Amino acid sequence: MLTDMDISQQAKLRPIGWIADDFGLGKHLWREAGHSMAKISLEAAKAPRRGKLVIVTAVTPTLFGEGKTVTTIGLTQGLHLLGHRACACIRQPSLGPVFGVKGGAAGGGYAQVVPMEAMNLHMTGDIHAVASAHNLAAAAIDARLFHETRLGKAAFEAKSGLKALNIDPEQILWRRSVDHNDRALRQIQVGLGDNNGPSHGSGFDITAASELMAILALCDDLNDMRSRIGRVILAMSLDGKAITAEDLGVAGAMTAILRDAIEPTLMQTLSGAPCLVHAGPFANIAHGNSSIIADRIALAHHDFVVTEGGFGSDMGFEKFCNIKTRASGIAPAAAVLVVTLRAVKANATAGDDNLAKLESGFANLRWHMQNVLGYGLPLVVAINRFPDDTEEELDWLKVRCLAEGAFGCEISEAFARGAEGAKALALAVARACDTNSNANANANTNGNANSKASFKPLYSDEMSFGAKLTTLAERYGASGVNLSGQARKDLALIESLGLDGLPLCIAKTPMSISHDPALKGAPGGFELPVVGLRLHAGAGFITVLTGKVMTMPGLGLNPGYLGIDINDKGEIVGLG
Amino acid sequence: MLTDMDISQQAKLRPIGWIADDFGLGKHLWREAGHSMAKISLEAAKAPRRGKLVIVTAVTPTLFGEGKTVTTIGLTQGLHLLGHRACACIRQPSLGPVFGVKGGAAGGGYAQVVPMEAMNLHMTGDIHAVASAHNLAAAAIDARLFHETRLGKAAFEAKSGLKALNIDPEQILWRRSVDHNDRALRQIQVGLGDNNGPSHGSGFDITAASELMAILALCDDLNDMRSRIGRVILAMSLDGKAITAEDLGVAGAMTAILRDAIEPTLMQTLSGAPCLVHAGPFANIAHGNSSIIADRIALAHHDFVVTEGGFGSDMGFEKFCNIKTRASGIAPAAAVLVVTLRAVKANATAGDDNLAKLESGFANLRWHMQNVLGYGLPLVVAINRFPDDTEEELDWLKVRCLAEGAFGCEISEAFARGAEGAKALALAVARACDTNSNANANANTNGNANSKASFKPLYSDEMSFGAKLTTLAERYGASGVNLSGQARKDLALIESLGLDGLPLCIAKTPMSISHDPALKGAPGGFELPVVGLRLHAGAGFITVLTGKVMTMPGLGLNPGYLGIDINDKGEIVGLG
Repeated sequence: MLTDMDISQQAKLRPIGWIADDFGLGKHLWREAGHSMAKISLEAAKAPRRGKLVIVTAVTPTLFGEGKTVTTIGLTQGLHLLGHRACACIRQPSLGPVFGVKGGAAGGGYAQVVPMEAMNLHMTGDIHAVASAHNLAAAAIDARLFHETRLGKAAFEAKSGLKALNIDPEQILWRRSVDHNDRALRQIQVGLGDNNGPSHGSGFDITAASELMAILALCDDLNDMRSRIGRVILAMSLDGKAITAEDLGVAGAMTAILRDAIEPTLMQTLSGAPCLVHAGPFANIAHGNSSIIADRIALAHHDFVVTEGGFGSDMGFEKFCNIKTRASGIAPAAAVLVVTLRAVKANATAGDDNLAKLESGFANLRWHMQNVLGYGLPLVVAINRFPDDTEEELDWLKVRCLAEGAFGCEISEAFARGAEGAKALALAVARACDTNSNANANANTNGNANSKASFKPLYSDEMSFGAKLTTLAERYGASGVNLSGQARKDLALIESLGLDGLPLCIAKTPMSISHDPALKGAPGGFELPVVGLRLHAGAGFITVLTGKVMTMPGLGLNPGYLGIDINDKGEIVGLG
Repeated sequence: MLTDMDISQQAKLRPIGWIADDFGLGKHLWREAGHSMAKISLEAAKAPRRGKLVIVTAVTPTLFGEGKTVTTIGLTQGLHLLGHRACACIRQPSLGPVFGVKGGAAGGGYAQVVPMEAMNLHMTGDIHAVASAHNLAAAAIDARLFHETRLGKAAFEAKSGLKALNIDPEQILWRRSVDHNDRALRQIQVGLGDNNGPSHGSGFDITAASELMAILALCDDLNDMRSRIGRVILAMSLDGKAITAEDLGVAGAMTAILRDAIEPTLMQTLSGAPCLVHAGPFANIAHGNSSIIADRIALAHHDFVVTEGGFGSDMGFEKFCNIKTRASGIAPAAAVLVVTLRAVKANATAGDDNLAKLESGFANLRWHMQNVLGYGLPLVVAINRFPDDTEEELDWLKVRCLAEGAFGCEISEAFARGAEGAKALALAVARACDTNSNANANANTNGNANSKASFKPLYSDEMSFGAKLTTLAERYGASGVNLSGQARKDLALIESLGLDGLPLCIAKTPMSISHDPALKGAPGGFELPVVGLRLHAGAGFITVLTGKVMTMPGLGLNPGYLGIDINDKGEIVGLG
């Protein structure tokens, strides 16, 4: 059997200029960037919106995902095959998973973005740029602390001509960033040795979880990015004031580092349909959606734009609905929920034989369907077929999904058959979008039930922090919320800054609808433990850390890097 | 007066495809990469060598450099203006200095590589790729230590199917890497907190000082890079064995990360001459020369290839002669020594008026001239003229340089007048190359005086570590060498591995010929204090840390980032 990489490397790629032409981009709107990629100018977003946005999500996944990106790319290929102008908008893979677990994030089989090794390894360098801007701010705050401490306030101000910031070394809120799974960097002590301090505790998060990654994904344009970066809070002063990147004078330089990263990267699918790749993954610990800028560029030139949120509908989809649409004002026209027989069974809490396991695990799928339907969206369930799936089980699942209120339920064979294998799904999704008469309406971000738009977020801007959190927790099935001492302290700080009205970005395990990966199915009656909060004033949300979630993964016992190498032709091997 | 950035932004660039055409590269040998840049295939190095290599160096610089890159680019422009096929080969700027001190490293005035903001900010991402490969190895060794410690040797081997490495947590030799001036990361403790350890001391070096940067600069091709990375020593085992990237199984993945970085980036000078940009700076703490691959590609297609080594001739030039030519086998045809009246005066140790200061400071210039001449190279001194330099002083300097044995001494006005201002220098350099009948010969790396090649390194491969170090120290003017206890311990380890025969890469201040920045002029009689050694088995040299040198810079009181921003047209401002 061919690997994903074999299929990618054997593919006959179209010149990226042809893809850009088909996209409708004049030559002034793009520039070639490495192997079969192009950076797209933000000017390309200025044409009026013409397309419908489809959001792809999934049931609670097993460890390796259930083929959400395969389905996103396959669906785009299917719509393209049907003659629609269709474009996928997905996130740049992180090197953490690429080298941590086997495989990349460019789809798979005959539903891939190609060349997959270019997409999986750096692409056009956006994630590195985010880390670089992030770490410049970290270096800058520590350097300022060093100089102010060394000289004292008066001498510092006299010598530098700058106003002292009086940084509290115990309250440097800005950690550092690297795009690898590096467990040893989760918690570190910096500024040790002679004349490198003051020393203080710190740590690295994986770059996808950087606030700057969220800003890249949520901003409107370069000016908006500049303003948002200026608002980023790096530390607290000894007298309790927030110290922003603007206060430190580093916001302009950080934006300069990101000037190229703000442009989405155009690539192609195996069927030659376009794909814009932009912003980062990790919908468990970050907001984890691709960028608003990419969506706008794609929607200005296509009838259908297919995007995805990471993990299950409790994770990336929830953040898509409650964070991304709030910032973009663009309501989706329909949702696709990806499921596999394997995942339904993996979510079973009882049952000995296959059908009993399906029946038990169906509770999880039902929860995700109801979750999606609750946002007012027409829903198509896509069953991502695996070779040994039986017709009996597939039929059983289809009947149940339709009975639960799905607009449609189609089997996707995009992995094995590419566009052709996603044709039925594409037809169903196109029809679902048509039923949604307000698909092109702006998102109603205040959850007003009288709005004509069918889509509505789960909570309104006006709700208090506690009400928003409780609403989210109850949707997961929790009976209540339990804030740790640290979380209460964090909340008090956020309240003192008057920023407790921001939307919430829940960081939790993706392996359960709850905070506890051991709770399968559709758990209920648990208490959601909130262990800490992180204020992201520039991104415009509060991250809520729950359970044992960590913002830096670690490498496992048999990390993916073991199999990766170059061959004697200089080609990369072993990448999925 | 126009800033460097104004000049760069006002320049009318030629399409990079035209530059590649003039270079002589078929379309299959390059691919466009972002704004006016192209990545060049290594196949382009396969044509026979036709050109002469000119190495540009300088006197002991003041803090902001004396215009070495201005002269390198200006000379290339001048040779190009004279109708020669000429190409510059220089290093990618590090973001550390870009944001630390005002200004980039793309030259200046009318002798620049353009667009300067693209070159100064990420370029094509090579430095980020080096940091990423470096940090993958760091994450991998800590993860292996974590799993072997947590499970114990037997269980680790049974569960993973891998052989235990028995890493000594006190002897993890591989630090981490970031391309910023981040003082707080010089010395850190990693692996703190629950279940993230074993905790141990570590630190970050600026990426230019990564062994992988040296490998990028010194390797022949992708296979050689792969072999060298495999030899990189990451840690020692509890039973005293070296643990390499190959042992850890991470060398292939590290090479895959660098697969695009191995290709030099083609840019253009303001006069439209080509420039290959490749590998990193910091000739004080790294070997700090541009790549052998870029030189080979340029030499295969041009009559003159102009490259530079960082700081004074005691730093980058010395490493060019003793490390780079040893690896490449390519002897330079001539050397250019850049000097300014300001730098000569700054090196004065006595004198009240200008001429007396020049006379005193000339001792430094004389040392650098003798140093260069000692390698058997014809030498042209280039006086980089500043607006308020007087004719009297310039004439004085010229007479003295010719009397000291320079083949020529010319005033360069490349900053103010571009190619036209470097014409006299270009003529002199071309003539100097012609005097060197063996310019195209291979370097004689064993210092055999009977060789026909005029160029010879300072020491031979066969000399012992101590003899090499003493030879270098004596050339600096030292009366002896003093190894610290740590350095002796490091040497014993290197000897135990049988690798003490490698060439030396001296890390020292660039602000004096000695190890002490306070010793101006041409100091003598001091003892060179060696504080530690670092073995770089993959790069193929031993780094010798002297004095108070640090492998991670810090941000100053008024860091360069303060002035950098984007304007309302989305252009970067304040970058030099």
